[in-house]
Amino acid sequence: MLGGGASERTRVRRLPDRGVYHRRAIDAILDDALVCHLGFVHEGHPYVVPTLFARVDDAVYVHGSAASRMLRGLRGGLDACLTVTLVDGLVLARSIFHHSINYRSVVVLGRAVEIEERDEKLRALEAFSDRVVPGRWLDVRQPSRQELKATTILRLPLDEASAKVRTGPPKDEEQDYGLPVWAGVIPLALSAGERGPDPRLAPGLDPPRWAPPHRRG
Amino acid sequence: MLGGGASERTRVRRLPDRGVYHRRAIDAILDDALVCHLGFVHEGHPYVVPTLFARVDDAVYVHGSAASRMLRGLRGGLDACLTVTLVDGLVLARSIFHHSINYRSVVVLGRAVEIEERDEKLRALEAFSDRVVPGRWLDVRQPSRQELKATTILRLPLDEASAKVRTGPPKDEEQDYGLPVWAGVIPLALSAGERGPDPRLAPGLDPPRWAPPHRRG
Repeated sequence: MLGGGASERTRVRRLPDRGVYHRRAIDAILDDALVCHLGFVHEGHPYVVPTLFARVDDAVYVHGSAASRMLRGLRGGLDACLTVTLVDGLVLARSIFHHSINYRSVVVLGRAVEIEERDEKLRALEAFSDRVVPGRWLDVRQPSRQELKATTILRLPLDEASAKVRTGPPKDEEQDYGLPVWAGVIPLALSAGERGPDPRLAPGLDPPRWAPPHRRG
Repeated sequence: MLGGGASERTRVRRLPDRGVYHRRAIDAILDDALVCHLGFVHEGHPYVVPTLFARVDDAVYVHGSAASRMLRGLRGGLDACLTVTLVDGLVLARSIFHHSINYRSVVVLGRAVEIEERDEKLRALEAFSDRVVPGRWLDVRQPSRQELKATTILRLPLDEASAKVRTGPPKDEEQDYGLPVWAGVIPLALSAGERGPDPRLAPGLDPPRWAPPHRRG
């Protein structure tokens, strides 16, 4: 046991040197991501659905409508695994075997429960909207009572979470360093292209500035 | 049943207009992605791990060493769900409720089996390496017999697969189109930064050109 949110289930077994258990490191990865992959079991089979999410304090909130399947088993909470992965670069080694990817990932295990309370739902929706474009919440029309009711949001506590991180150059076999092949890292990041205005956009409205989450400071 | 790889399990239940079942469309999404999220059940609990993958013909191959857990139950194959998600843009509506993400995702359900045959393993490794940098396979040292043995690769057939795609501008409530707020799409894509050579790189070697998979033609 390494503490800080690690449990027997979340402890990284393979390549344990890549395991990270500090909540601050885990939060930073979660806060850099736009979507997560939520895993659950339905009739004995595994399912994985991509969905919007956001961390608020000691929990992650998940936009539940991404999958109807996962909501059926919800009485008492849904046994879930939420995984977030940020691909930071391609690691090109001198041998195929040592090729790798630089990445940061987090796995959260626990029971996801549907939230019912209006204020908590609004807080979660504001957090989703902040993930998309910071400050967007104040610029647009807030949810109506009916829209809020139609939105399913799940909360998963961060009690059992761990992260895995790979950074840095390739690690080649000593005898391969002399091979005449370029080795190093090609950094990758999500970047924004040119804004595409809605065809029905009224004139004179400027698009919001968007920056990738990890550069928002 | 809509055919083309759809089954009762993979049919998209929510927002069925976003469901895509043609193998060509499914293959195109799989071929645009670098990593997948593999879900499986271990001792009744769901787990989701990110891992390298590549499609070859009618199967996806997964780099199994990303998780030791999933390999334990492997006698007879592992019941798995492989999900791939490409985030293509942020959809900014005039109301919070209609904010969305443009994306392409694929879900493959089935039994993942470990492959043992040397030629198939090499073919899968070449496919992984082509996902990272096309042509890399021929430039670097091939796997030794021992390295090949140490590499676990799983094959998951594409028999049961479906895709979901969202594209285009936001869909707002009719009465919201007059609101004085910018609406439209901010396209997002994975892009490469400046290459970082290995500190031990010999002089005079040029980095390979990298383009995102969907622009490789």
